[in-house]
Amino acid sequence: MAEFSLIERIRRRAAAREDVVLGIGDDAALLRVPPGRELAVAMDTLNAGVHFPDGTAAADVGWKALAVNLSDLAAMGAEPAWCTLSLSLPQADAAWLDGFLDGFLELAAAHRVALVGGDTTRGPLSVCVTVHGLIEPGSALRRDGARVGDAVWVSGTLGDAAGALRQWQQQGVGVDPALRDRLDRPTPRVALGRALRGIAHAAIDVSDGLLADLGHVCTASGLAAEIELDALPCSAALAAAFDRNTRRALQAAGGDDYELCFTAPAEASAAIGALARALALPLARIGRTVEGAGVRALTADGTPWQPARAGYEHFG
Amino acid sequence: MAEFSLIERIRRRAAAREDVVLGIGDDAALLRVPPGRELAVAMDTLNAGVHFPDGTAAADVGWKALAVNLSDLAAMGAEPAWCTLSLSLPQADAAWLDGFLDGFLELAAAHRVALVGGDTTRGPLSVCVTVHGLIEPGSALRRDGARVGDAVWVSGTLGDAAGALRQWQQQGVGVDPALRDRLDRPTPRVALGRALRGIAHAAIDVSDGLLADLGHVCTASGLAAEIELDALPCSAALAAAFDRNTRRALQAAGGDDYELCFTAPAEASAAIGALARALALPLARIGRTVEGAGVRALTADGTPWQPARAGYEHFG
Repeated sequence: MAEFSLIERIRRRAAAREDVVLGIGDDAALLRVPPGRELAVAMDTLNAGVHFPDGTAAADVGWKALAVNLSDLAAMGAEPAWCTLSLSLPQADAAWLDGFLDGFLELAAAHRVALVGGDTTRGPLSVCVTVHGLIEPGSALRRDGARVGDAVWVSGTLGDAAGALRQWQQQGVGVDPALRDRLDRPTPRVALGRALRGIAHAAIDVSDGLLADLGHVCTASGLAAEIELDALPCSAALAAAFDRNTRRALQAAGGDDYELCFTAPAEASAAIGALARALALPLARIGRTVEGAGVRALTADGTPWQPARAGYEHFG
Repeated sequence: MAEFSLIERIRRRAAAREDVVLGIGDDAALLRVPPGRELAVAMDTLNAGVHFPDGTAAADVGWKALAVNLSDLAAMGAEPAWCTLSLSLPQADAAWLDGFLDGFLELAAAHRVALVGGDTTRGPLSVCVTVHGLIEPGSALRRDGARVGDAVWVSGTLGDAAGALRQWQQQGVGVDPALRDRLDRPTPRVALGRALRGIAHAAIDVSDGLLADLGHVCTASGLAAEIELDALPCSAALAAAFDRNTRRALQAAGGDDYELCFTAPAEASAAIGALARALALPLARIGRTVEGAGVRALTADGTPWQPARAGYEHFG
């Protein structure tokens, strides 16, 4: 199977959108940005053995490669529109590609994202995706918009994906399926990001770990944050699988959650509560922004707490 | 050196553009597409040992990674605007990154391209770039626009990069510096692509090899092409380094040229000649489009000629 057959295999399954003038099959895609919208662009790569365990199902790799990118658009409040895909494969494997596309295109269809271009190359398994979204000028959720006195919120639950990875790395421990699903099939919080325009002051998606990612917001906004460890939302599966101290580290510093962490003024609490109900998505108030720099995690009695590591860093 | 330091190192050197609302440093870049323009998007990956020889200078890898992408925009007639970069490195190496940026940003500056986002990850050396260009609606040079009776043209010279690779692969043969420069530092023909709007019927950049790439134009346009081998433009360095038959194969099927191959009606010849003088770039008429399918390469006496392989294919 040659490169052109792989591309043809992808092209046949790519969905259309009215604003795609020209999709897969030329030197570049041609796209129409509607008047009154700005373009939001994010790009993330997943490498085998680094961003997902070797042996992860092809469909899960496909899902996750798009999910982590859509999560970036969600964190900006942008509406997903198009994506490009660069796939490096050790060898042309039609069955693997078909499985990959199952996961990738299932998520793309759920968000009406058209796959419009990219390339396939020979190399160690690696998936690079660029996503394009649309956003009303001036309404993006930026990292630098937090203000002192904001409440800090997070969606969903934290630590599940890191918990699955921890179990996977331990000899002789089975991986809880609910946790594994959160590692393999993260849910980009696109609807939440869109709904937070005009409500949140700042937002980021939790990919490197809550403390590290909230730290980026603090740095960009020129302030500090205090987090109450006991307020971090925890799934039943995570609570059942780990002791309190391990669980805290996974929740605060594990990463790979792809939940949204955002700050909002105190008076927005009722609106955020209503949003949680409307989206059927728990939104937990976990702390506040204060003057200063950095993120402090506090136990119930106000004691500062430090995880063994602050967050996931490549080259760390 | 951690990931955030690498990103900061990149961010400090990235140039600004007025239409970049938000560049490196948030979850996504925010960009403004001017009214009356469509967006052209291309994405290409270079993997070490596949798309460039191991040991290629970092600055050359940086240049080439952007050049092959700009070449795609050139082939559409689009004006380059922004790019994103995903860099996978075996280890965080500040000196290598600085060299890489030297080459990448030198070419970016020459085309006023702003680097607006991306990521750095740990993994085998791989560079993925997405470029964004702007194009007037309806004026893109597509692969499917060729008409029977068009002349087929190509810019610059062919076979130089493939010649350098051939020499590099041969034991005990030095690589000609002029050929090596064409392999490491291809010139995207952006100004030519822009100027061909309204003149050319179809265009493609020569990356896989002339016969293969022209074959894509023929397939998309539903016609055939005849190429005169003796008309293929040849550099002095290539002519000096190889016998006629080897040279022909390198020119017709070698690839990695990043010249533009385009078709145009016969009456456009004078305009194309004037363009060649204005751009100080040789433009050679190498054949014609005819009814049928496929590409035929002919020797001076009209004998069909077949290279050992039709073009560069990954997974071939």
